[in-house]
Amino acid sequence: MAVYTHLGAEQLEQLIAAYDVGELISAKGIAEGVSNSNWLIETRRHGGQTNRFILTMYERRIDTAELPFFLGLLDHLSASGCPVPRTIHDRDGAAWRMLEGKAVALIEFLPGVSPDAPTPDQAQAAGAALAQVHKAAMSFARQRLNPLDIPYNCQVLEKTDRKAMMAIDPAMAETPAMAQRLAQNWPQNLPRSVIHSDLFPDNVLMLGARVSGMIDFYFACTDAMAYDLAVAHAAWSFDPRGERFSPAVGRALVTGYESVRSLQAGERKALPILAQGACLRFVASRTEDWIDTPPDALVIRKNPMDFVRRWRFYDEAGPGAFA
Amino acid sequence: MAVYTHLGAEQLEQLIAAYDVGELISAKGIAEGVSNSNWLIETRRHGGQTNRFILTMYERRIDTAELPFFLGLLDHLSASGCPVPRTIHDRDGAAWRMLEGKAVALIEFLPGVSPDAPTPDQAQAAGAALAQVHKAAMSFARQRLNPLDIPYNCQVLEKTDRKAMMAIDPAMAETPAMAQRLAQNWPQNLPRSVIHSDLFPDNVLMLGARVSGMIDFYFACTDAMAYDLAVAHAAWSFDPRGERFSPAVGRALVTGYESVRSLQAGERKALPILAQGACLRFVASRTEDWIDTPPDALVIRKNPMDFVRRWRFYDEAGPGAFA
Repeated sequence: MAVYTHLGAEQLEQLIAAYDVGELISAKGIAEGVSNSNWLIETRRHGGQTNRFILTMYERRIDTAELPFFLGLLDHLSASGCPVPRTIHDRDGAAWRMLEGKAVALIEFLPGVSPDAPTPDQAQAAGAALAQVHKAAMSFARQRLNPLDIPYNCQVLEKTDRKAMMAIDPAMAETPAMAQRLAQNWPQNLPRSVIHSDLFPDNVLMLGARVSGMIDFYFACTDAMAYDLAVAHAAWSFDPRGERFSPAVGRALVTGYESVRSLQAGERKALPILAQGACLRFVASRTEDWIDTPPDALVIRKNPMDFVRRWRFYDEAGPGAFA
Repeated sequence: MAVYTHLGAEQLEQLIAAYDVGELISAKGIAEGVSNSNWLIETRRHGGQTNRFILTMYERRIDTAELPFFLGLLDHLSASGCPVPRTIHDRDGAAWRMLEGKAVALIEFLPGVSPDAPTPDQAQAAGAALAQVHKAAMSFARQRLNPLDIPYNCQVLEKTDRKAMMAIDPAMAETPAMAQRLAQNWPQNLPRSVIHSDLFPDNVLMLGARVSGMIDFYFACTDAMAYDLAVAHAAWSFDPRGERFSPAVGRALVTGYESVRSLQAGERKALPILAQGACLRFVASRTEDWIDTPPDALVIRKNPMDFVRRWRFYDEAGPGAFA
């Protein structure tokens, strides 16, 4: 949640002049994105019409070689009618440019606000939008392996210092063994497409109960579609601490999804273990971040226990979590 | 540069409903403001017209008892034709509301970007806008003492640990004595109005060489108008490190100011010492912040030496800095 790079007015004006979008009239650094800096940009054409865009500067974690996948995906999904922002190409047709040695992209601004405590209606709309993305992405030509797959997440927990882990919460001690059991039972050969793989409510813009935008596709990869639904289920159906499950929200998410794409029997059966895999992923990344972030840093550390609780819930509830 | 408080979509929607501005369609936390959290808000009326606003939450340093001064000043200046954002009043006519125990205000959004390396044309426009504010503010009914006056700034340097000061730069050691000399020679009885007192280029929004907005009036107070011009001179006429003075920018600022309000002979004569007082102020506040901020904090510490250099320049150049 920061702007990592200072861009002066003159640099921004020069950059915007490379696009056919009118003249720069406003630029505000926005407090979004963990690995990128983002600005909300306003431009005006000579006729007087104003337009808004998000300018993203790729700061870290994202390799420029992956931008054809990420930005091409936005364009493909947007052209297919998904509520996804398209990339604005520059006058030479390029989807990104270099500035200060870093890649930058100008991306369509979409209205909407992210729900804080999603209602079943909102979850249903999000489920439907996710299925729409899965179907549209089947015809996207590029592939990207999931770097945060189950073996990787197992390894993160394996290599983490046990004392540091116990200092977060004694219950964390069980997670490496839980992860190994998941890896052994992980379902193979489920139908795949490009998946968002991080569809928290934060990444969905809504106007009432309508999805106006799905954003932050920088974890997108080629993987099992049902895993993506399981990630969303774990992200949407609980309070932030993972203490209270909302069956109505979980059910609405799956119902919405199936209104656009029916789950196969094998996918439906796999949901409980896929949801545990989703929890493992967030436990692994949050554990790493927690241990790497000094307690007095200005960044809010997210507690991995919020997803250990969800993990246990899915382990105990089994198919009941999706009934 | 942060958003200190999380506001959920539901809270924001409820808040916006208290104003006659249409429905909330977007809210982005923006990376501006040191003592406030700010969001760029977009609303839509039933007719389809969209509007933008800045939502400010007063986090610290600002006492709610001072909001009638700050927000009333914006309304007064805006109504007088100054390029200053007006406050949007709620349906009950209130200029601010309480949310999560903190005061919030909805403020007009103004276009423009802050110049990074101002040109003389831009400085001239800024000088004229500052004079316009001084003239308009003479009829503003409220007063506010300058809490960062010369005695206060002298005291800040006096009480600062000498070793900590020397650790920043050995040249810092001279500053408490320099401050005492300033206090003894500080001009009295100069014509007063409400002054901005922090008019860095950051706080001026421009469209080309036109001032489209002056923002961040939270240091505004009743004090000598020529002091405000001297603050702007010290803020605009140097590179950020204070190593290179631009006579053309400095001259344009004063010329622009005098195109709207002529300086009296006493004011003109006082400018060199007033500019040193402006430097003292930023040396004092930056020294405090530097010593209070751990070096590994994610906040960029501003080096007080940037203004010690300017201070010496004004001391040596005397009236020549304004020739």
